Amino acid sequence: MRVAVFGATGLVGREMMRVLEERNFPVDELVPLASPRSEGKSVLFRGEAVEVHGVSGKAFEGVDLALFSAGGGPSREWAPVAAEAGAVVVDNSSAWRMAEEVPLVVPEINPEDLEKHRGIVANPNCSTIQTVVALAPLHRKAVLRSLVAVTFQSVAGTGSAALRELEESSRSVLDNSSWTPRIYPHPIGFNVLPHIGDFDDQGITQEEWKMMRESRKILHLPDLRVSCTATRVPVFRGHGVAVTAAFEKPLSPQEARNLLEAAPGVLVTDNPGENLYPLQGRVGGTDPVQVGRIRREPDFPNTLSFWVVGDNLRKGAALNAVQIGEALLERGLL
Amino acid sequence: MRVAVFGATGLVGREMMRVLEERNFPVDELVPLASPRSEGKSVLFRGEAVEVHGVSGKAFEGVDLALFSAGGGPSREWAPVAAEAGAVVVDNSSAWRMAEEVPLVVPEINPEDLEKHRGIVANPNCSTIQTVVALAPLHRKAVLRSLVAVTFQSVAGTGSAALRELEESSRSVLDNSSWTPRIYPHPIGFNVLPHIGDFDDQGITQEEWKMMRESRKILHLPDLRVSCTATRVPVFRGHGVAVTAAFEKPLSPQEARNLLEAAPGVLVTDNPGENLYPLQGRVGGTDPVQVGRIRREPDFPNTLSFWVVGDNLRKGAALNAVQIGEALLERGLL
Repeated sequence: MRVAVFGATGLVGREMMRVLEERNFPVDELVPLASPRSEGKSVLFRGEAVEVHGVSGKAFEGVDLALFSAGGGPSREWAPVAAEAGAVVVDNSSAWRMAEEVPLVVPEINPEDLEKHRGIVANPNCSTIQTVVALAPLHRKAVLRSLVAVTFQSVAGTGSAALRELEESSRSVLDNSSWTPRIYPHPIGFNVLPHIGDFDDQGITQEEWKMMRESRKILHLPDLRVSCTATRVPVFRGHGVAVTAAFEKPLSPQEARNLLEAAPGVLVTDNPGENLYPLQGRVGGTDPVQVGRIRREPDFPNTLSFWVVGDNLRKGAALNAVQIGEALLERGLL
Repeated sequence: MRVAVFGATGLVGREMMRVLEERNFPVDELVPLASPRSEGKSVLFRGEAVEVHGVSGKAFEGVDLALFSAGGGPSREWAPVAAEAGAVVVDNSSAWRMAEEVPLVVPEINPEDLEKHRGIVANPNCSTIQTVVALAPLHRKAVLRSLVAVTFQSVAGTGSAALRELEESSRSVLDNSSWTPRIYPHPIGFNVLPHIGDFDDQGITQEEWKMMRESRKILHLPDLRVSCTATRVPVFRGHGVAVTAAFEKPLSPQEARNLLEAAPGVLVTDNPGENLYPLQGRVGGTDPVQVGRIRREPDFPNTLSFWVVGDNLRKGAALNAVQIGEALLERGLL
């Protein structure tokens, strides 16, 4: 199988290649693609350097699976080209997620949606993925009605330059030296920015809309009520989400723990008496979405709160994309 | 007037003395008190060194106002002693806040509760203060029904040793060196801990109960439904709170902005198009509670979300305590 990775030099693209390797995805030929300015660079795959090519229509010829993580603009331009050339595109950008004909898939939740794909499958937003992975097993039992999600998102979601920016910004505070941000509108070191993506005219950010719209689409709950506040926190890698979820039926914290312990892709880390709860600082490089601090809300009927942590580069991006590839294979859709 | 500050060598105690100075509180004699181990230290007040004494029953003789910030245990022990000696105690700990006979006061909201004091007045929890300062003006207009608050609390709330801990923890990550936390159960540098205060057997923390119970008491809303997730973020000073609040009556974001702009102690910082919203990294040393990102929740009736930032050492502690002293004076209660 020929597998293209478009955005191969980015944080998520590199993670995609690592995940393909680790999971022994049946790659016969890897085709690393990037914008023309990365032409001639090379990436490591299975211990060998593979040359990166600039994206072009020709590059997708004979490609079976194309994992895209090159941003919304390039996805809008190149995903239809790749699909037309016969590849199935799994797109990590937000460009196609809400398109009616494009499945938006978390393989643990709605793999059946892959059946209707027409060449493009969308990988959901990072913080949305980890939130719905934790919610879906509870929803199946107790019927989810509404959701308040407050995200604590690491800088890795912005890309590799943001990792340097957090380091520089933090050092400037520690060393009391002057420094000017380039990536974020304000210094991110020892600060929290309640701002991810552009604001609409109602004052809601793109990132907040993603949580609202994508969770409805993935969970097949068009009437699910969602509130989201998305923030950027001074953490290198791994997102946290504080979730408060109301269900139609009662669900005890222990029932929720049992359901989550049996759920694929979830690790319950919930023993507060031993100071055990999910931590963003420890989740980098790991696959499962961790859920902890599961508790009943005393003032709200049938409502649980919990804390969800995931590696935004793995389950929030590269891992979920490769899992979509695996699910496509299993279903004979590739 | 003789004014005692018990906990004079701590972060909040020192801030209390600074606020007394800045606001020209009519202090004739300052009596700095601390635990016996700080006996013999001195603190600066109005440019002069004043000797710190170990706390004792005798120390409160002739004291008119005693500002306490020495922790719950010492407050439980010494507040009744000071009150018995004739002082009015304004206590920053959580020891007395929920006691029926003790007013829990934010002077912008419920100064009338001071009238019933019997020698002890409680200063509310830091994150609760900034949340209710933002909510009260909206409640008066639209009647608050329920509230989901997710806090982003800085380490200054833990005390001066936690400031060093955040610095050391952060440097250990940046320098890739080993380091063991002393104050928090996990490294706080580039991490988020969903854990402030002890857990009860339902998995709710003390800090979360404070938000639930104290906001009901301050706002005189015994039936207010409150959900809280309290987290510690790697920020030196200044707390953030993501608030989603449901009201009985409709309230537009612009009406909310107008109400908050007219409200005492509030600064509306809300121009997302210009990247203007409250930032924890900038709030240290300032008095007003800043509110921004005020928006309507599209899926929930009569519901607004917003982002509230305040200096936890000023309005969240020392400033509110001194303002209580001022309100006591104005009402002839001192």
